[in-house]
Amino acid sequence: MEKAADTNGTGPTESAESRQYLGLRDGIASRISTGDLKPGDKLPSERQLQGEFGLARGTIREALFLLEAEGAIFRRDRSGWYVSPPPVVYDPTRWEGFMSYVEAQGRVPTTFTISTATIPADPLLSDIFSRPLGAPLHHIRRLRSVDGRAVLVEKLVVDAAITPGLLDFDLNTSLTAILKRNFGITVARNQISMQPCALTGDEAVDLRQKSGLPGLALQRVSYDGHGRVVEYDHEYWRHDAVQITVDLRVR
Amino acid sequence: MEKAADTNGTGPTESAESRQYLGLRDGIASRISTGDLKPGDKLPSERQLQGEFGLARGTIREALFLLEAEGAIFRRDRSGWYVSPPPVVYDPTRWEGFMSYVEAQGRVPTTFTISTATIPADPLLSDIFSRPLGAPLHHIRRLRSVDGRAVLVEKLVVDAAITPGLLDFDLNTSLTAILKRNFGITVARNQISMQPCALTGDEAVDLRQKSGLPGLALQRVSYDGHGRVVEYDHEYWRHDAVQITVDLRVR
Repeated sequence: MEKAADTNGTGPTESAESRQYLGLRDGIASRISTGDLKPGDKLPSERQLQGEFGLARGTIREALFLLEAEGAIFRRDRSGWYVSPPPVVYDPTRWEGFMSYVEAQGRVPTTFTISTATIPADPLLSDIFSRPLGAPLHHIRRLRSVDGRAVLVEKLVVDAAITPGLLDFDLNTSLTAILKRNFGITVARNQISMQPCALTGDEAVDLRQKSGLPGLALQRVSYDGHGRVVEYDHEYWRHDAVQITVDLRVR
Repeated sequence: MEKAADTNGTGPTESAESRQYLGLRDGIASRISTGDLKPGDKLPSERQLQGEFGLARGTIREALFLLEAEGAIFRRDRSGWYVSPPPVVYDPTRWEGFMSYVEAQGRVPTTFTISTATIPADPLLSDIFSRPLGAPLHHIRRLRSVDGRAVLVEKLVVDAAITPGLLDFDLNTSLTAILKRNFGITVARNQISMQPCALTGDEAVDLRQKSGLPGLALQRVSYDGHGRVVEYDHEYWRHDAVQITVDLRVR
């Protein structure tokens, strides 16, 4: 609805609408909304767009960057611009893990474990897990994709004292399921915190993005039924891959 | 917790930690975390930092841009870099409006009405409000600040048929309160959708930001007790000003 409301110019301020690059933006956005360009389709090259619209290269790029910022198109390595697939809907008030809710939306989720390590707790993590300084904690770094496109990188920390041998399991699946099936751990409370961010450093590298792309940083502290912290999670999503929704009714 | 976990280097991948600008980033971040630099404080100028750390201007700027991306510092017009105030916590599972929840966090909320207009419904809005094409809708554009810093710009649309004369009220307050007190309208359901975005166009201008700064786009459709859409809202937040939290427990 976001983009449609903007291109329909329903707001009271439309002063900027006259600029050239906005015209090109609207042209491409309308090809996407009519289905002339479909999710995953490659856009014409910048040179082709230049010829077709008779605009300067800089103007073409301005329009493309705006569409990228709006989440409508994205860059794939050096091969050019593509129409973004629809975002995955994430409802923080529901319990399903990534593998479940992505599948329920008719998409194909995959998980790739980048690295694992068991590391002594530093002061911050010792505090979060209520464990002594230096207590062993499992660190797991994973890349998660939807329909083959990398959408988030996550850094998981799990209390090693209650999950011996965890790193020997196949972690390219649901961690929730592994914890439940093999260690009898069930999450009873999630404290979730999200903040828009810019993707930088290792996160940008793992998502194959230029540093600075808007993203969403999500932290999750998971407790078991005894109020014990069992998992501490950082997720970094690319901005066009996720939509957070909450439906709130008076009870 | 985000920044602390990163600077403590708890993750298994730390390959980037050796780069010069990351050292400077850590130096400034640690001055902020120890309270040597407080929210609202002005950072030394880029020239002063250059002298102090003996680094190239480009390296200094790289570190400052990273801190901005992380939400730790922000630019104020041409006057320089400042330490970010803490973000406002927004819990989409609670009912309070901006004026209430900001105040409850010991901060000072203000609202400034940028423009208002009554505009005939276009196809999209006619569909959302279940009103005929061309039915009058009130459009309100407002800028909202916390402790004097602009944090979000919003575009509100309200059904004019049930709110005659709404635009004559002082809209620099709580719209929820005006709707309730003067039109007997109470919201019974909110459908909220959020997506990280880049702030561009008029939104960036109103927030006095360079185009492309990460932000959060929030849409809210509000229904009354009869299931009638009474309000349709778009909010654009600057990324360092808001933190979304949800605390979810097994019932």
